[in-house]
Amino acid sequence: MLNYKLIANIIGFLIMLDGLAMMAGIPFSLYYSDNDVNILLSTGSATALIGLIIYLLTRRHEKEIRKRDGYIVVSLGWIVMSLFGAIPFVIHGSIPNYTDAFFETMSGFTTTGASILNDIESLPHGLLLWRSLTQWLGGMGIIVLSLAILPILGIGGMQLFVAEVPGPTKDKIHPRIRETAKRLWIIYFLLTIAEIGLLMTGGMDLFDSVNHAFTTMATGGFSTKQASIAHFDSPFIHYVIIVFMLLAGTNFTLHYYVLHGKFSVLKTNEEFKFYLKVIFTITIVIAVSLFIKGYANPETSFRDALFQVVSMVTTTGYVTADYEIWGSSYQIIFFLILFIGGCAGSTGGGVKIVRHLLLIKNSFSELKRLIHPRAIIPVRFNESSVPGDIISNILAFFLFYIFIFVLGTIVMSLVGMDFLSAMGSVATSLGNVGPAIGSVGPSYNFAHIPGFGKWFLSLLMLMGRLELFTILLIFSPSFWKS
Amino acid sequence: MLNYKLIANIIGFLIMLDGLAMMAGIPFSLYYSDNDVNILLSTGSATALIGLIIYLLTRRHEKEIRKRDGYIVVSLGWIVMSLFGAIPFVIHGSIPNYTDAFFETMSGFTTTGASILNDIESLPHGLLLWRSLTQWLGGMGIIVLSLAILPILGIGGMQLFVAEVPGPTKDKIHPRIRETAKRLWIIYFLLTIAEIGLLMTGGMDLFDSVNHAFTTMATGGFSTKQASIAHFDSPFIHYVIIVFMLLAGTNFTLHYYVLHGKFSVLKTNEEFKFYLKVIFTITIVIAVSLFIKGYANPETSFRDALFQVVSMVTTTGYVTADYEIWGSSYQIIFFLILFIGGCAGSTGGGVKIVRHLLLIKNSFSELKRLIHPRAIIPVRFNESSVPGDIISNILAFFLFYIFIFVLGTIVMSLVGMDFLSAMGSVATSLGNVGPAIGSVGPSYNFAHIPGFGKWFLSLLMLMGRLELFTILLIFSPSFWKS
Repeated sequence: MLNYKLIANIIGFLIMLDGLAMMAGIPFSLYYSDNDVNILLSTGSATALIGLIIYLLTRRHEKEIRKRDGYIVVSLGWIVMSLFGAIPFVIHGSIPNYTDAFFETMSGFTTTGASILNDIESLPHGLLLWRSLTQWLGGMGIIVLSLAILPILGIGGMQLFVAEVPGPTKDKIHPRIRETAKRLWIIYFLLTIAEIGLLMTGGMDLFDSVNHAFTTMATGGFSTKQASIAHFDSPFIHYVIIVFMLLAGTNFTLHYYVLHGKFSVLKTNEEFKFYLKVIFTITIVIAVSLFIKGYANPETSFRDALFQVVSMVTTTGYVTADYEIWGSSYQIIFFLILFIGGCAGSTGGGVKIVRHLLLIKNSFSELKRLIHPRAIIPVRFNESSVPGDIISNILAFFLFYIFIFVLGTIVMSLVGMDFLSAMGSVATSLGNVGPAIGSVGPSYNFAHIPGFGKWFLSLLMLMGRLELFTILLIFSPSFWKS
Repeated sequence: MLNYKLIANIIGFLIMLDGLAMMAGIPFSLYYSDNDVNILLSTGSATALIGLIIYLLTRRHEKEIRKRDGYIVVSLGWIVMSLFGAIPFVIHGSIPNYTDAFFETMSGFTTTGASILNDIESLPHGLLLWRSLTQWLGGMGIIVLSLAILPILGIGGMQLFVAEVPGPTKDKIHPRIRETAKRLWIIYFLLTIAEIGLLMTGGMDLFDSVNHAFTTMATGGFSTKQASIAHFDSPFIHYVIIVFMLLAGTNFTLHYYVLHGKFSVLKTNEEFKFYLKVIFTITIVIAVSLFIKGYANPETSFRDALFQVVSMVTTTGYVTADYEIWGSSYQIIFFLILFIGGCAGSTGGGVKIVRHLLLIKNSFSELKRLIHPRAIIPVRFNESSVPGDIISNILAFFLFYIFIFVLGTIVMSLVGMDFLSAMGSVATSLGNVGPAIGSVGPSYNFAHIPGFGKWFLSLLMLMGRLELFTILLIFSPSFWKS
């Protein structure tokens, strides 16, 4: 039996939050005399009220929350917040179609950043802020989820990261979810403030700085400009955003330890080192080849390569240049980057660096096992050996990821997309990146995809964001057998 | 220390065989008064002589053959036979370029069937027969390899099939490689004879029947006609070839048991049942959709769908219709089929049905393990539970397969191919299929690929044919540490 009352209670609380957050942009709309003040006020307060009523009606519930309740709350949470969050766009008329509005909002809460908007600048400031805020809230959600909730649910080998940081509190940052959340959110908040300050120093106005800081820290990628970051012709702004994308794509427990003076974790954390190596290597290859091709001067070649690589690896999805026009090989490389993903415990999505690292290590161990069939060859990570069940969990994750990617590509081709665009749209949704290749490349958007395709991609964004298993379990018959 | 003398002795024997086999087509060339008799005679006897000399010089060797010697013999065997086998094409001038001739011959011995010939009918009969014979010999090689040698070497979870057939001789068909080989070759030979007879009954002449029987049984796919099987406008011939492709893609131990009256293996063998289900399901979907689209009458829609699906799943690569012009969704489906592969212990290449089946089963077990973390949930296959090390071996195989596919796609794009064609050429080479998509689709060939690309694809064919690990091990440093 599921604990329905408790589930409803938490969902009610989330709806309330959703409603309150919708109204956050009102000061900006008032300042810029936009036409969305009444709409934000009315839909926001109505949503908050609905949430409050559900919350109050289900106050008296059993305290015990079991694993299965956890899966349901997490999945439902993202869905319900997107269902309500889409309403202001429809009522205002800036996104008249509910399917489009839902796609945009799910793309926000999952920190994907795929957009259906053809003229972002035409939206009023309050709605734009709400759009960016969905990503920032999604990012907050995912930090708690990946570092405090999923490890308890045993999803996707995530147990690993809780135990990965050395030090006196070896097993967990803090035993209680609430405390863990609070500590991580403070870091998230401080980094956001810092980015706002630096972007304003670079000449961006307050509104754009707030929006971009929100969507950088969430590795979301929504921009207030149709041209994304390419709109801002300032190397300083580009570098600031690169640095904060890198920070957002890093495991937040590392930030926690670094802020407490334990710099040694940066040296011992294998995932972090591999993350930097991957980004650095791909950037150098691209930057050098672009420069040789006569693309631009060394600094611009390097900056454009670095920005695009960091943006795609961290699954942010900002753009300062269109890699599709660089050539066919670059297209393949950026398509492949869609499958990398940020670090575990970051706001980045995708397969994640740590899984790739462990898969690579395990593959080499397997070769050694063939040569020495009787030897025991463990996979080592951060100086301890990884239990076999975590390896098989990660392998299963990877297979499901590929399986869903393949199946998704077939579905999107049946919807009418060509092969490359179908692959790209599925990979970028599942990886929570944003831009892809073909007709959903950096210079295009998702507006032209038929309605069914948008609902399907929304599902993929959700599956990707919740580490696949959360959703797969709910769809599996054995979940519903008591 | 490798047993170099023994290795050289076996290789010498193989070169001798290679030379003798080159001359097999001479009777046809004499009958048709072709201009290749002298060339086949001279290169054939010279090759055989070289082989004989190496064989005799290394007669006195240690008898003991170790695993590492085995890997080397197997890899070198395929390479050396292709190196020599390419010579007659170059000397005759029908394939003036050695790179092209090597590609064609490696494509033959690995039973891939990818061709660089733009006018197959212009070749003399002796050379055409040699081309088909490379596939038939490659098929013979692979049966012994996969059912008698690889299980001993522990490659790719192949241990499984030796133990998969129930009955009095549970552990192995016959303990000694030589006896196993003899029994399986008799089956291979009898099936080839049967197909020749049936094709002639359908109106094909003796020469074409022999050639197509050779390349069907090897799941090779070389045809004596530029238009492949589409050249023969006879439903009877199409169905005969479909049946024999299906037989060639089946585990040969099943043929052995069926020929000895043990029909029950067909019912208990999960791989065989899954193989038929996969082919049947994909065929029905394609046939019905083709018919609805108004492609042809029901029988032709069914036959064309069935032929193409069987041809690609068994990794044969014959063509009676071009699926590329059916539409984008079909293109995706046939691209994906490149990754299926025939049954283990057949002449088919690719990932293989049994690996997919075990991966699927293991993935579902993994979901159950998440819900019941303390339960032991084994993967069951053919009524017994599969040991964990075989599962991890198969998972590692699959990851390496994907990794090589991805890396290969990048390499082929750097060679100048577009994204789809690069993916297709790599997938079809690694899977030993033949045709692919894009510029290497069923209506095209591999002639236009630059030289380096042809050598690279030849390597991929070899890797795929030898279940990856054989080659990967030789490239891995720990192999060479004593």
